[in-house]
Amino acid sequence: MMKIDVLTLFPEMFEGVFGHSILKKAEDQHAVQYNVVNFRSYADNKHQTVDDYPYGGGAGMVLKPQPIFDAVKDLQDKSSSSPRVILLCPQGERYTQNKAEELAASDHLIFICGHYEGYDERIREHIVTDEISIGDYVLTGGELGAMVVIDSVVRLLPEVLGNEESHMKDSFSTGVLEHPHYTRPADFRGMKVPEVLTSGNHRLINEWRDKESLRRTYMRRPDLLEGTELTSQQKKWLEEIKKDAK
Amino acid sequence: MMKIDVLTLFPEMFEGVFGHSILKKAEDQHAVQYNVVNFRSYADNKHQTVDDYPYGGGAGMVLKPQPIFDAVKDLQDKSSSSPRVILLCPQGERYTQNKAEELAASDHLIFICGHYEGYDERIREHIVTDEISIGDYVLTGGELGAMVVIDSVVRLLPEVLGNEESHMKDSFSTGVLEHPHYTRPADFRGMKVPEVLTSGNHRLINEWRDKESLRRTYMRRPDLLEGTELTSQQKKWLEEIKKDAK
Repeated sequence: MMKIDVLTLFPEMFEGVFGHSILKKAEDQHAVQYNVVNFRSYADNKHQTVDDYPYGGGAGMVLKPQPIFDAVKDLQDKSSSSPRVILLCPQGERYTQNKAEELAASDHLIFICGHYEGYDERIREHIVTDEISIGDYVLTGGELGAMVVIDSVVRLLPEVLGNEESHMKDSFSTGVLEHPHYTRPADFRGMKVPEVLTSGNHRLINEWRDKESLRRTYMRRPDLLEGTELTSQQKKWLEEIKKDAK
Repeated sequence: MMKIDVLTLFPEMFEGVFGHSILKKAEDQHAVQYNVVNFRSYADNKHQTVDDYPYGGGAGMVLKPQPIFDAVKDLQDKSSSSPRVILLCPQGERYTQNKAEELAASDHLIFICGHYEGYDERIREHIVTDEISIGDYVLTGGELGAMVVIDSVVRLLPEVLGNEESHMKDSFSTGVLEHPHYTRPADFRGMKVPEVLTSGNHRLINEWRDKESLRRTYMRRPDLLEGTELTSQQKKWLEEIKKDAK
């Protein structure tokens, strides 16, 4: 079972997300155990202060080293393995599906979620093993980033999704984006499903899907194709797609 | 006041995030109004079904067009403006701080959060104005993506952060990552704050910060520097930083 500890000043933010849908199901199945900790409870000063003014001046408050150092130490001491200590911040390594797969192989993850202006640098330097940014945009704190990473990792744990196939074909696992999906009705208010999908010819259906995956990737995310080895069939299609696009 | 509607099958997932910290404060200040709607209530079939098998076969279920078309139409009819209709999906445009700033200028945003294998393609083609992906990784649904986008947008609304300066200096707003932060104590268990920060010399402090921002960006995210016009001072520092790194 994977153990996930989250250090945050806003533990209630996690209730809705950990308490529903697949993350909840994963905990019910004992695939994962969540433990959300308010690190204010580790502050050793009288007023349980966790932040202070930045040295050198400037706007905003900075998270002090002591409460986070002591909280992580306590969680590490209780662990039977060597937990990864993950800091969510815009300066981190950009998160990818490969990183999700790497984290999914761990036994124990500790997430540190900051709020306010930033973290004391000594936290990064001395106790963090992975600094992660979920994207090039700024959030009010690390909580949503932690939820995103946890969601992407927990769904990869064995038996959580039920259907193995469901994540083998994910966008980013295959190097191309997913093909379009259609369901009933075949004619919805005049908008029709492509004929091939109702033909019953599975060879043609698979061909159409593979080609549309490639088309979508070329049109929307050509950067993904640079890192992907294409089959000779895909190369041929790509020439056709480029002609169509002109 | 900005209006934000969210269409989801898991409305309870949003309670923790909308009910705490800055997103809650923004609603209390009437900077934004959230409305989370379960689109299952728009399903016009007897069993309120929202998904069905994919045409052409395959694993997973696909969201039907009818409930989402009718939910969006209803929310649009009630709107005094032309809302953006945002679909969260891995195939979307990659989300950035520029996009957050663009969305923050809107009056009304409608988010569609899918779960399961995917959306019927006719939803994308006919009612969606923006397809957004928060990053190159796969999540169990669109809910966390919607929360991320909403958080990054709402913090940019006037008066929400209180301190204007707080988001002018964000990473990604300036083209470089933020410099390291330090707070008390100056000596924490033998780990010391850089001397310049306690010198009281503000010219030197600002220089140190600007240079460390540049160093961090060069070391961690050199791609960001490609899109940034550097001052002659920054160019000179960058040469020094490159030498130090060897």
